[in-house]
Amino acid sequence: MTQQFSRRKFFAGAGLFSTVATAGALSACAKPETSDASSEAAQSGIELATETIAFDQPHQAGIHTKHQAHQWLIAFNLAEDADRDGVIRLMKLWTDDARKLTQGEIPLGSLDEEMVTRPANLTATIGYGRGFLVKAGLEDHAPVWLDKLPEYPTDELLPEWSEGDICLQIAADDPVAVSYASRWMIKAAKRYATPAWVQEGFSYADGVLAESETPRNLFGQKDGTVNLRTEEELDSLVWISDSENWLNGGTSLVVRRIEMDMDGWDAADRGVRELSMGRTIAEGAPLGQEKEFDDVDLTVTDSYGLPAIDSKSHVARAHPPVDNPEQQILRRVYNYDLPPIPGHRFTSNSGLVFGSFQQDPLTQFHPIQQRLAEADRLNEWIFHTGSAVFAIPRGTAPDEYWGQSLLET
Amino acid sequence: MTQQFSRRKFFAGAGLFSTVATAGALSACAKPETSDASSEAAQSGIELATETIAFDQPHQAGIHTKHQAHQWLIAFNLAEDADRDGVIRLMKLWTDDARKLTQGEIPLGSLDEEMVTRPANLTATIGYGRGFLVKAGLEDHAPVWLDKLPEYPTDELLPEWSEGDICLQIAADDPVAVSYASRWMIKAAKRYATPAWVQEGFSYADGVLAESETPRNLFGQKDGTVNLRTEEELDSLVWISDSENWLNGGTSLVVRRIEMDMDGWDAADRGVRELSMGRTIAEGAPLGQEKEFDDVDLTVTDSYGLPAIDSKSHVARAHPPVDNPEQQILRRVYNYDLPPIPGHRFTSNSGLVFGSFQQDPLTQFHPIQQRLAEADRLNEWIFHTGSAVFAIPRGTAPDEYWGQSLLET
Repeated sequence: MTQQFSRRKFFAGAGLFSTVATAGALSACAKPETSDASSEAAQSGIELATETIAFDQPHQAGIHTKHQAHQWLIAFNLAEDADRDGVIRLMKLWTDDARKLTQGEIPLGSLDEEMVTRPANLTATIGYGRGFLVKAGLEDHAPVWLDKLPEYPTDELLPEWSEGDICLQIAADDPVAVSYASRWMIKAAKRYATPAWVQEGFSYADGVLAESETPRNLFGQKDGTVNLRTEEELDSLVWISDSENWLNGGTSLVVRRIEMDMDGWDAADRGVRELSMGRTIAEGAPLGQEKEFDDVDLTVTDSYGLPAIDSKSHVARAHPPVDNPEQQILRRVYNYDLPPIPGHRFTSNSGLVFGSFQQDPLTQFHPIQQRLAEADRLNEWIFHTGSAVFAIPRGTAPDEYWGQSLLET
Repeated sequence: MTQQFSRRKFFAGAGLFSTVATAGALSACAKPETSDASSEAAQSGIELATETIAFDQPHQAGIHTKHQAHQWLIAFNLAEDADRDGVIRLMKLWTDDARKLTQGEIPLGSLDEEMVTRPANLTATIGYGRGFLVKAGLEDHAPVWLDKLPEYPTDELLPEWSEGDICLQIAADDPVAVSYASRWMIKAAKRYATPAWVQEGFSYADGVLAESETPRNLFGQKDGTVNLRTEEELDSLVWISDSENWLNGGTSLVVRRIEMDMDGWDAADRGVRELSMGRTIAEGAPLGQEKEFDDVDLTVTDSYGLPAIDSKSHVARAHPPVDNPEQQILRRVYNYDLPPIPGHRFTSNSGLVFGSFQQDPLTQFHPIQQRLAEADRLNEWIFHTGSAVFAIPRGTAPDEYWGQSLLET
């Protein structure tokens, strides 16, 4: 069952956390953890359909679990008259829906049994913007970093892609599963919150990349070579560890919408592309090295004695300074590609929905982005058009709802 | 290799036409028809990536070949000063690009080797609107049906989703492949034509449905049970057969954008849904029958002696009259689901990108749609917001370009 195995490809280092189970088709009550059901499903050709990722976990699924092929990031704004009781009702409702949908079960009130039994690794992950805590009367519980990011010199932010009281990340390996779950959650929230923006993203379909192969973005670059992967890395840089804090076991999410000038990129030759990135395109190797996962070594020189990696390349600017190893993030990146807009500056309307998880955006994401905004050669072709920051509460026990430790403070 | 087999699932009856080959990764010159390369690819987990569908065929690929998971339908309008020479240049350019892209080869001028070597069953199919023939000075070669369809009583057509001089259908099992090919073709056309509309569609991901299982639309209905499948059916009802006609071996494409009122559908119970459709939801069986592929028999009665299938159900209205067996079409249907629009009549912004291929839209599609528009109970929840008709030329020989038999008239 090579194929089965290759489905766990994106998060190579995360075998430690593996919480992927394979559910036997419809019956949602008993979820075998063994591969018996999986073999049966494989024989009917639908093994991907019935794969599930556990919902109740110490950390929310959708962060350290595998990166699926399709994702909707949905930001909501709460109704003007929202209060603590209202958001508690919404969280109870949503948690119950998400718990069921991700396990291939029917959410309360749905008549669409046939639309929910193929979750295909569906995850639903929640985050709170500052507005959520303000409206719930809990602003004093907001971490300092839960606010707009500092302005960067290259920012071209548009309000229609920025901020929001709540963020829902819905992802799966099947677009139908993402569509149903997204619609259901939007509808369930109707009395309490309305969508502010939706960023629909895609990566390679399941089965297209080899096991643990790094996906490429629309520029053709391997995107995600450097990432936090091991349990140790996540514990020290992603999960918040502070037993006094409602975010204990949680993290933060930075969302950036990054438009890409495909016309301009097409006009650059491969040498320019590699110089700007600081990596080869074919292998994704740091310039001056041979393989993708070779260390980024800014001291390596070429045959002329010049640095192999240009000091203004993306890699050089993103690389954490020796004294600041905390400047690392867990990236979760999807492509977007929308119909061209007549009269727009570029022929295409495409780019990245960039997400990063880290303990503290201000000490981890911000200094990296500051350096990139100041001098990354890639800035010639990329434009940040949206930005948002969310606090991601820890995962749930089976009898808990999202954010309970905050909301029942 | 059960999985490999299940990848040919959608077009159960079309084994006769099977033109799916499995290419060994990059080397595009030699495409083994055997499974050797496929086994190798399977071991690296990328067997879907390198599957290809032959480009040069008597009939264009993308019609009788398998239905892939993702599709962009792109309509173009030719530049005001377009003439015969210009459209010939465009067709030569595009044919060369499509021939290469669909086989995992690099189109002329692309530096993105890594973005084209995973075609994942990519197809590119071309169609011409009336405007194409007019601007090429060939209006006298336009079939009578190549024009706006008659207006139906339920039409709510919007110009932004209607008509166009050219239609390109780009489809694959991987959204990255569709994105790259679509962008490339749009860019290649820049001097000659600009996009009028793009309808991005999706169905289940490869590996989610069992072999030859009928996909469901966002209403949860099996969609495509009744379809033209066998070589005999396609020869008698889809492919135009007239050696004097430039469309010999070609067909016609009707595109309808159909918005779906998901809120309203949610409020209908399963009994109402089944009555309106004329089929059960779980099995997709005609009411009064047991299995999906049981005959639609409008004379079957229920225990009260009433017709099991309501005369205003979708199935009853769509069913060809006994004397008009030619009223059948080859459906190719995708879901769309876009971000909600604030203030829109429905919470969601979703529906169907409906395509149908037939010899003559006026004698095949039109009478069906006329009956549906008059009395289909589903009309309570569906709204036709876009419409277009295109002539689909026959496929190419390896030294031909799209539409050559028309353009060199």
